[in-house]
Amino acid sequence: MRITVALAGLLLAATALAQQVPPAAENESPEYIKGKETLARVTGAAGSKTVENLQDIAPELGRWVVEWGYGQVLSRPQLDLRSRELATVAALTALGHAQPQLRAHIHGALNVGCKPEEVVEVIMQMAAYAGFPAALNGIAAAKEVFAERGVKVNTSP
Amino acid sequence: MRITVALAGLLLAATALAQQVPPAAENESPEYIKGKETLARVTGAAGSKTVENLQDIAPELGRWVVEWGYGQVLSRPQLDLRSRELATVAALTALGHAQPQLRAHIHGALNVGCKPEEVVEVIMQMAAYAGFPAALNGIAAAKEVFAERGVKVNTSP
Amino acid sequence: MRITVALAGLLLAATALAQQVPPAAENESPEYIKGKETLARVTGAAGSKTVENLQDIAPELGRWVVEWGYGQVLSRPQLDLRSRELATVAALTALGHAQPQLRAHIHGALNVGCKPEEVVEVIMQMAAYAGFPAALNGIAAAKEVFAERGVKVNTSP
Amino acid sequence: MRITVALAGLLLAATALAQQVPPAAENESPEYIKGKETLARVTGAAGSKTVENLQDIAPELGRWVVEWGYGQVLSRPQLDLRSRELATVAALTALGHAQPQLRAHIHGALNVGCKPEEVVEVIMQMAAYAGFPAALNGIAAAKEVFAERGVKVNTSP
Amino acid sequence: MRITVALAGLLLAATALAQQVPPAAENESPEYIKGKETLARVTGAAGSKTVENLQDIAPELGRWVVEWGYGQVLSRPQLDLRSRELATVAALTALGHAQPQLRAHIHGALNVGCKPEEVVEVIMQMAAYAGFPAALNGIAAAKEVFAERGVKVNTSP
Amino acid sequence: MRITVALAGLLLAATALAQQVPPAAENESPEYIKGKETLARVTGAAGSKTVENLQDIAPELGRWVVEWGYGQVLSRPQLDLRSRELATVAALTALGHAQPQLRAHIHGALNVGCKPEEVVEVIMQMAAYAGFPAALNGIAAAKEVFAERGVKVNTSP
Repeated sequence: MRITVALAGLLLAATALAQQVPPAAENESPEYIKGKETLARVTGAAGSKTVENLQDIAPELGRWVVEWGYGQVLSRPQLDLRSRELATVAALTALGHAQPQLRAHIHGALNVGCKPEEVVEVIMQMAAYAGFPAALNGIAAAKEVFAERGVKVNTSP
Repeated sequence: MRITVALAGLLLAATALAQQVPPAAENESPEYIKGKETLARVTGAAGSKTVENLQDIAPELGRWVVEWGYGQVLSRPQLDLRSRELATVAALTALGHAQPQLRAHIHGALNVGCKPEEVVEVIMQMAAYAGFPAALNGIAAAKEVFAERGVKVNTSP
Repeated sequence: MRITVALAGLLLAATALAQQVPPAAENESPEYIKGKETLARVTGAAGSKTVENLQDIAPELGRWVVEWGYGQVLSRPQLDLRSRELATVAALTALGHAQPQLRAHIHGALNVGCKPEEVVEVIMQMAAYAGFPAALNGIAAAKEVFAERGVKVNTSP
Repeated sequence: MRITVALAGLLLAATALAQQVPPAAENESPEYIKGKETLARVTGAAGSKTVENLQDIAPELGRWVVEWGYGQVLSRPQLDLRSRELATVAALTALGHAQPQLRAHIHGALNVGCKPEEVVEVIMQMAAYAGFPAALNGIAAAKEVFAERGVKVNTSP
Repeated sequence: MRITVALAGLLLAATALAQQVPPAAENESPEYIKGKETLARVTGAAGSKTVENLQDIAPELGRWVVEWGYGQVLSRPQLDLRSRELATVAALTALGHAQPQLRAHIHGALNVGCKPEEVVEVIMQMAAYAGFPAALNGIAAAKEVFAERGVKVNTSP
Repeated sequence: MRITVALAGLLLAATALAQQVPPAAENESPEYIKGKETLARVTGAAGSKTVENLQDIAPELGRWVVEWGYGQVLSRPQLDLRSRELATVAALTALGHAQPQLRAHIHGALNVGCKPEEVVEVIMQMAAYAGFPAALNGIAAAKEVFAERGVKVNTSP
């Protein structure tokens, strides 16, 4: 059943992709094109919104996010996107100073097929490695994202 | 083949377990007993060495590590140990101030069946979320651990 | 006079305790019961509110906070609660990324008998160990908490 | 032309100075007087507002900011204020937990003659040393400050 | 008995003081003189060694440590040195990146009369606020300092 | 005279460059080639040594450092390399967990023409923004680098 859910997630992502990714401009590198695809799969429309918001102040930073962050770092085949997103949620929870990005990657984890219970679990785990405050603020971020998406968590032990 | 390797890892871990976990003392809680098992699976003999080193200064901290950290946090079934260890390696790489624990969990990731390439990958990924210095120091820790274990990394793209 | 104030604080806390701690359920461990008492002494009603908020997303994290955090870590007799709360306020000020928990423990420090001037002092001290931004944001948190409680600080040198 | 702009900035700062710095009180040390001048040059009226806000809770912390932070640390002639403010913007962006102070020093960098493009650049650079989340939140702070001041960034490569 | 121990500690510190603090030079401010006294009480000879080591590279930083850090921040009467040192040990344990200073302040806590068990306790407490790695590295620092001083910890619960 | 020194530094760097940068391989992108040049200017031979050390474990991370970090981030003309290196030294000092990289960029700052006194100054400044421990450990790193290079600091006020 988990596989089914994951497949459904991929289908949804693929549909979203078809709608969001503009056709490659002439001067776009293969990494940029790959990056736009991965960005859309992970963040839906939110990521390209972030990149757009940078256009009038730091457009190159936006290009780096797409071309290097998503086109190179996250697109390497050595690790699946589910493990990558869980690891990013863990790291941002532990760091504690990047709540907007933590929320974005909780969305991202769900977008690439993680179960809400897995996202909650990896945040809870950070209590042991970064302390309760980090874990509690991580859960607060998850609660916000889940409410926005209408996601219910199965809390039976 | 990956499944085979993982199974072999589990068998090795189980053997190690049989050798390392002393029989439950009378006053040990179920969580403590569970914790010792998970500790042995994840850290081999190193974890119980760490706990022993605390006996003459902070034995209760050692009990917390076993009973709460490994017996409760890491033993919950909601997430597999491979995902947990990759997430911990990511978080400790990003935090940057806990090199001994990072090395322990790089061992841990390998002990529970992660491929060296996956460990390297999740550390590299932290370049995007915590910067190059954190990622480079994480790779240095991995290099040390891999050398100690005679592990070779497949670096073909 | 300081002793009188501290005693009054304890009496108030004890009264609060009688109102807030529900009778022990059948399956509650001794550590959980002890934890609920310490949680109430330190945080008044706020802590159990935090734990309740976790029920629909990460109830086990709430149990850990009560049973391990307050029932074990904070309940050990080796250090008094006043020193513990001042130390926690110092650490959260220095870390800088946990403002909600910092506010909770500024309340906590006052709840267990610390004088407002002592709370302010330990935050100011962090200027030397974690820099002015951390100390200034810590004071901003204290200002908020003191306003909420109607606390005035004696600022004569 | 850059020199002209810098000079204009200094003139504006000097004018602001004349309006903001109250005459030295009798008990003010030379470092305090020097600190008030540097504070006004760097932060305009905002810094003295911050110091004022501390009067009813931690006035000595305010005195330390002026006398030690601005009167001694920032007033040493070994490094110009432009380099100092760029370095502070970089450090606060990297630390990630001090957004109010980051905004204050983005103002500060502009006040002492940095070009908006230089401020943006040093924040972007932090992507490499502290990761994208830190850099993105730094740019968000800059965007806020620039909007407040009506500053436009030249984004041509 | 604890009072006796504390008094003995003060006497020892006072004796040490008499030996370590050179007579005030002509150009030393009252804060500097006060700072040298507090530095000697807290750090014994180690602090002035640190300051000396700065003479050929950043002597002013050494002056700031003495005059501002110890002469002003730590010398204020609003909080006793024992609480201050416990708070500093907690904060440096939580930050995790300042092991040399953590060791210095574990010495400092003992020098101003904290019991080894209190030092251990405040470090253990950080497991809850900053995670196990920070607490374990803090205990490692304490173990080193205690070994150097021949201090034994009473670990009975 | 400062200009002369800076020019001499550039000449030395250019000479070093001629020796260190191997001819561009066929498959090297313009960003990679540019990155190798900037890497050599900033780090001398040390940077390419770091990249080489990654070849058997994470070669792509090395490519990212050169192509993205040095070829894109640090090579943009909006900010001079001296300001960039001072900002990086400040940020790494404040973060506190990346001593090897801090030492590399203290070398880097000197390599691109910063005076030792400027490097010391920006590290000292971090006492105000990240606390004394960070600044003291930063100075310790500088002391090591200066000793290695035979650099003397002018400490007259």
